[in-house]
Amino acid sequence: MLKTLSLPTHQKTEIIDITPQVQAIVTESGIQDGVAIIYVPHTTAAVLIQENADPAVHTDLLNTLDRLVPQDLPYLHQTVNKNAPSHIKAALIGPSKTVFICNGQIQLGRYQFIYICEFDGPRSRQVWVRVMQDAA
Amino acid sequence: MLKTLSLPTHQKTEIIDITPQVQAIVTESGIQDGVAIIYVPHTTAAVLIQENADPAVHTDLLNTLDRLVPQDLPYLHQTVNKNAPSHIKAALIGPSKTVFICNGQIQLGRYQFIYICEFDGPRSRQVWVRVMQDAA
Amino acid sequence: MLKTLSLPTHQKTEIIDITPQVQAIVTESGIQDGVAIIYVPHTTAAVLIQENADPAVHTDLLNTLDRLVPQDLPYLHQTVNKNAPSHIKAALIGPSKTVFICNGQIQLGRYQFIYICEFDGPRSRQVWVRVMQDAA
Repeated sequence: MLKTLSLPTHQKTEIIDITPQVQAIVTESGIQDGVAIIYVPHTTAAVLIQENADPAVHTDLLNTLDRLVPQDLPYLHQTVNKNAPSHIKAALIGPSKTVFICNGQIQLGRYQFIYICEFDGPRSRQVWVRVMQDAA
Repeated sequence: MLKTLSLPTHQKTEIIDITPQVQAIVTESGIQDGVAIIYVPHTTAAVLIQENADPAVHTDLLNTLDRLVPQDLPYLHQTVNKNAPSHIKAALIGPSKTVFICNGQIQLGRYQFIYICEFDGPRSRQVWVRVMQDAA
Repeated sequence: MLKTLSLPTHQKTEIIDITPQVQAIVTESGIQDGVAIIYVPHTTAAVLIQENADPAVHTDLLNTLDRLVPQDLPYLHQTVNKNAPSHIKAALIGPSKTVFICNGQIQLGRYQFIYICEFDGPRSRQVWVRVMQDAA
């Protein structure tokens, strides 16, 4: 089962919790055991699984990516929104993550949530989620 | 179904489109709904999903990785081809990616293609692709 | 089938081979063709597939991550163990990897093993492994 989430982003860079929406898709699927794969069909956004307790971790991550891939270097990709660093950050974090499902529930560590990383917002973004049953 | 692509690379670092070959494997599998997992059995290459419109993005990504993991630091891994940075770049981008299949077609965002990142070429490389049916 | 490995780590940062344990889980599952997904339910650890021949590559990777995400920057996430860099390194390497299974055997490249990256040890860590059968 493949479902699409649509969500607006509000800042140039931003980390947005989508855990409840992913769980709702898993619940709707009726699948008890398997995996959910979360995928963004974008090249300047990414899917992240990270700390859910202290939002300062998100700021530290975004600041570190800004330091490693600064906005003002002479990149070759010259677009109106100067988003070469956005592409590179998205490549480093990656466009998808996989989580496990047991008894219809997403299995995450105690401090893990599922997030979308916006690296070139604000925009309207899509997130695709496929829930796959464990056939065994 | 597990299939192997073999491809030559031509430069030390290079980003090579394999989207048509992955689609051909999916088509050959006959699977209509599921996922394709693309995996490189190498430690100095990676699989990337990124921008397909402007090849300057690829150059920006390779240049950024060269800046972050420069060739001339005193790495401990001393081989003839001095490829410690190649391993580290491969670890940062990762050895595999997963894409969705609907109606027999790979589902990608408008600006996404599937690429192999060569970080220690030129070489002959393998890419493994497993197409898995959604059992639900 | 979802199984949990528990393992102690012994250093602040460390790369630990778990390939034999993952193969044992695959063997126990009886699944001949499919995938094994290896996942850490932690936000300061990661799963890595990399070089198995020269442990110097692991040291080079850990040193490079320390250089890119140094311990002593003014991060906002202030905990007793000052682990903001640990979270960021974990985000860069990622919490899971997928490997293929053929004839009951994990398929890896000649120089690939499966590793846990500890970025904030020593601790007791869990690794979750789901083996999924290829239904096709």
